[in-house]
Amino acid sequence: MTYAVILAGGWGERLWPMSTRARPKQLLSLTGESTLVGSTLARMATIVSLPDTLVMTSEALKERMVEELASVPAHRVIGEPEGKNTAPAIALAAKLLVADDPDAIMVVLPADHVIADDDGFRAAINLAVGAAETKRALVTLGIRPTRPDTEYGYIRAGSACDLEGVFEVESFEEKPDLERAEGFIEAGGYFWNSGMFIWRADVFLAEVTRCLPDVAAALSGVSCGPGDTGFDDELVRFYESVEAISVDYGIMEKADGVLVVPADFGWDDIGAWPAVARIWPGDDDGNTVRGDALVMDSSDCVAYSESGTVAVLGMSGVIVVRTAEATLVVPKDRARDVRRIVAALRTRDGK
Amino acid sequence: MTYAVILAGGWGERLWPMSTRARPKQLLSLTGESTLVGSTLARMATIVSLPDTLVMTSEALKERMVEELASVPAHRVIGEPEGKNTAPAIALAAKLLVADDPDAIMVVLPADHVIADDDGFRAAINLAVGAAETKRALVTLGIRPTRPDTEYGYIRAGSACDLEGVFEVESFEEKPDLERAEGFIEAGGYFWNSGMFIWRADVFLAEVTRCLPDVAAALSGVSCGPGDTGFDDELVRFYESVEAISVDYGIMEKADGVLVVPADFGWDDIGAWPAVARIWPGDDDGNTVRGDALVMDSSDCVAYSESGTVAVLGMSGVIVVRTAEATLVVPKDRARDVRRIVAALRTRDGK
Repeated sequence: MTYAVILAGGWGERLWPMSTRARPKQLLSLTGESTLVGSTLARMATIVSLPDTLVMTSEALKERMVEELASVPAHRVIGEPEGKNTAPAIALAAKLLVADDPDAIMVVLPADHVIADDDGFRAAINLAVGAAETKRALVTLGIRPTRPDTEYGYIRAGSACDLEGVFEVESFEEKPDLERAEGFIEAGGYFWNSGMFIWRADVFLAEVTRCLPDVAAALSGVSCGPGDTGFDDELVRFYESVEAISVDYGIMEKADGVLVVPADFGWDDIGAWPAVARIWPGDDDGNTVRGDALVMDSSDCVAYSESGTVAVLGMSGVIVVRTAEATLVVPKDRARDVRRIVAALRTRDGK
Repeated sequence: MTYAVILAGGWGERLWPMSTRARPKQLLSLTGESTLVGSTLARMATIVSLPDTLVMTSEALKERMVEELASVPAHRVIGEPEGKNTAPAIALAAKLLVADDPDAIMVVLPADHVIADDDGFRAAINLAVGAAETKRALVTLGIRPTRPDTEYGYIRAGSACDLEGVFEVESFEEKPDLERAEGFIEAGGYFWNSGMFIWRADVFLAEVTRCLPDVAAALSGVSCGPGDTGFDDELVRFYESVEAISVDYGIMEKADGVLVVPADFGWDDIGAWPAVARIWPGDDDGNTVRGDALVMDSSDCVAYSESGTVAVLGMSGVIVVRTAEATLVVPKDRARDVRRIVAALRTRDGK
């Protein structure tokens, strides 16, 4: 059977102050009425049994996720006692799934991405599930790039596989500088690394044993299932003992025979403020204005207020965001550095 | 006798959102503990009898001014039913003073300026009072310019008068462009028009009769004194019937024999945000940071918060102000245009 595994542990710090630790990005409604995590789950309704979904989130957000994702039983929302990046979380999910279903196929989805074309998404997932099943390979979705974005990692596709629409992965390329990104676009055959993965749980666990033996060892201490007495203690021990490492670095770049399904379904990870400007409609001067915001003699700005008035005059290419707690002002081309503000405030406030 | 007449009718819209209609600039404490209007009055304590001061403010601010200026009796705080700029207010004050004291000398002071050197200020005022008395002339204080500011009008001094430190006014020059302002500084003999005036009330009223006959006619309808029954009705009729006009355009530029006392006592009218940056100390990068504000990789910015956090990254020469109601973002060199924001918000909100 196919299962959804939703990664909902982060909070989207580069979208501060709209997203905060207490109100993480996946619980925001950026494009419509439902939250990003709610949409992520709903999108899978025709592919998996929603009650069998596993949601990997932080201990702090667990209750909120249980509330938000009513179709997932509370015990299948796993609250990580500490964040250890994606590899340990996915490995744990794989172990939990395979315990109940040795043939489990898992579709690993970040909780906080936007997808415009749900049908296109499901077609790609179904293709990937087929490939994961028949090829017993790790499969990733590669997004056809629409611009030389330097905020994404790229997947270089190699030979076509004998399944139509599926390719071998030649290499994973880290976030490039602009020149390299433009080269990728020009060359073709490069896709954005979406962070969406599809594989048999047992195949993935074999790669964990090979590539991340410490994680595999820690996993051997997990014998209960979610909801069992003793599971919480095992969870604490597991997260205490593993190193933080991403599935990209820890597994994907080392694994053999990884496959990619190139896809094009209006995906955006809304990693930082310029992405918000892409998904929210702008005016004739390229300004994205939301909430009680006034923009004069300005172009290419984001002016967003959710509390009080924002007034921007004579600015170009600047992001201005006001919430009840804070105001952010940063040029679009420095938007990735919002994480430095978050870090500085955390240090300053001793949190 | 010498009387202070304090002009406290405006609200400092270019300092929005720190100043608002409900919390006008003259009621802010920008440099210390006391409000600007409180300091303006206190500065005159050794020159005039404070209880004989006249305060010209708006009807809306009257109660607040009475509260703030405890040494001035409530009936001498005149609440203008509508703003008609400075000429009518000063003419009315002159009429009220001369009714009680035909030899009244009035020192007209804007309520919202900053003065660093109180002793220097008083010396200049005393010199000007002497000149107004002996020469029966309109006297203005001209501030020795410290930079080619384009936000001030300039006074061109002519021949020295036979009183030391007093000069004839050759001409009033409107706010110049930068090139002209630089020319003024280079040429010397030009002073900033401070809006501080000293004259005998009867001499000023004679100029009103000559230069602004309509205002003089309206004044003839005022027969009561402040606090008399019927004064409020006369006030309404007076303000209804006069045109709005500044004392600079209406009187000073047309009057003969105007004198100027050049002075240098750390004056600033704090007209707009760059002036605030001048009076508040900055850091090594030229950033003025006040309140809960964080500034990274930025220079020559103002980051001011009085409610919530302000975070500015990667900006240069930009003003960021956050209050409980609003956030302003504007380049320093566009700071004068904050009034356009105020106007746009008023139009938008139908106020």
